[in-house]
Amino acid sequence: MSDLKQHISTAFDRDLEGIQAQILKMGGLVEAAIHDAAKALESRDEELAEKVRSGDKVIDALDESLNEEAARVIALRAPTASDLRVVLSVMRMSANLERIGDLSKNMAKRTTVLAQMTQINGSTAALRRMARDVESMLKDALDAYIKRDEALALDVIERDADVDQMYNTLFREFLTFMLEDPRNITSCMHLHFIAKNIERMGDHVTAIAEQVVFLATGEKPEDARIKQDRTASDPALSANIELE
Amino acid sequence: MSDLKQHISTAFDRDLEGIQAQILKMGGLVEAAIHDAAKALESRDEELAEKVRSGDKVIDALDESLNEEAARVIALRAPTASDLRVVLSVMRMSANLERIGDLSKNMAKRTTVLAQMTQINGSTAALRRMARDVESMLKDALDAYIKRDEALALDVIERDADVDQMYNTLFREFLTFMLEDPRNITSCMHLHFIAKNIERMGDHVTAIAEQVVFLATGEKPEDARIKQDRTASDPALSANIELE
Repeated sequence: MSDLKQHISTAFDRDLEGIQAQILKMGGLVEAAIHDAAKALESRDEELAEKVRSGDKVIDALDESLNEEAARVIALRAPTASDLRVVLSVMRMSANLERIGDLSKNMAKRTTVLAQMTQINGSTAALRRMARDVESMLKDALDAYIKRDEALALDVIERDADVDQMYNTLFREFLTFMLEDPRNITSCMHLHFIAKNIERMGDHVTAIAEQVVFLATGEKPEDARIKQDRTASDPALSANIELE
Repeated sequence: MSDLKQHISTAFDRDLEGIQAQILKMGGLVEAAIHDAAKALESRDEELAEKVRSGDKVIDALDESLNEEAARVIALRAPTASDLRVVLSVMRMSANLERIGDLSKNMAKRTTVLAQMTQINGSTAALRRMARDVESMLKDALDAYIKRDEALALDVIERDADVDQMYNTLFREFLTFMLEDPRNITSCMHLHFIAKNIERMGDHVTAIAEQVVFLATGEKPEDARIKQDRTASDPALSANIELE
């Protein structure tokens, strides 16, 4: 019996290692997608943008196979409650990574459109800085997962507030550009979409970090889920803009 | 032994019924949230908007307890592959419902801001029609889940293309309003956010319908995942706008 348990547990560990290898591979590809999408936007590199768009298929495929593998492992190994928690968390993390990949792809699509319009000074550089922050948050969230590092995961969750702040600033900036010159409206709308995409990437990275905290402590970080999109509820924001 | 199996399977069925009751309760609350958020927007009913915002806590709590319950059932009952597939699908559906709730809450937040601005003629009515479509898609997706009705689920997935089309039309419309009169820009940005939120609700409902197809057939609907946000990639769109 103890032999059997021994056997089962090692089999599960082997399976889990395989799943974790997949999530880390996926994480690396998503990091690269964010990086390339932001770089393509700033340098108006349509070829790189196309690479991001086609590369998303690989990320989607990894998410799919990871889900199938995880379900197979649960059904086959009937893991203990704590082992099960790990597998379910990895499935959630995979879903978040897949969404970040979609958002990078969407960003790359808009790059192709924006490349045909007059550039709004400095805005793509600001977007790239924002994307760089999200990229390093993701890197740290995945490191925190590997090391089960609660402190690092909480740090990632905290840093999402800066990304939200950057988004709110860009939102005001784009509105100002539009008010100054209606010819900026179309490109500013697209730039704004991109800012919003990056802000949402930050939310998905935060969700991954929350999973890490949950795995490390068995509890969810309390206020981590409070959203910071002030453009939704801040009348001062629209007031300010109307005064301009 | 067969007694034991018998016992385990009925215990699992009881647990599953409990989980399904929770997801249906959640679905009902989310349907109401979409309905009330759209109604509050059109009638500028800030009280109703506040009700949607506070009501989202209940939806989040249901999602949380459903996930805990599902994990408990998997760990306790070690369900067969096909039973497990049901539980995992319900967990995914719960995540989609929770997101639709968040999007309704966000819509309600913007209603509070928009209530202080001059109304853009007809646009909130159009948004409400769009929301009504998503609401009925959700209702059908949940019915399809209960009856494991593949045809109805595929119908829901198809109808999401109409919602995306409505979104694309509204996107053009809002841009036109902005170009016509810069004083419309701020409110149009908020209205546009709302349109985008509803479009994303449609995507989440589609994801739920995909889970139903998967449960009914064991396969994912092929082209269901192709996104329809033409504003991201259609140069003609921005071209048209610039001609206006």
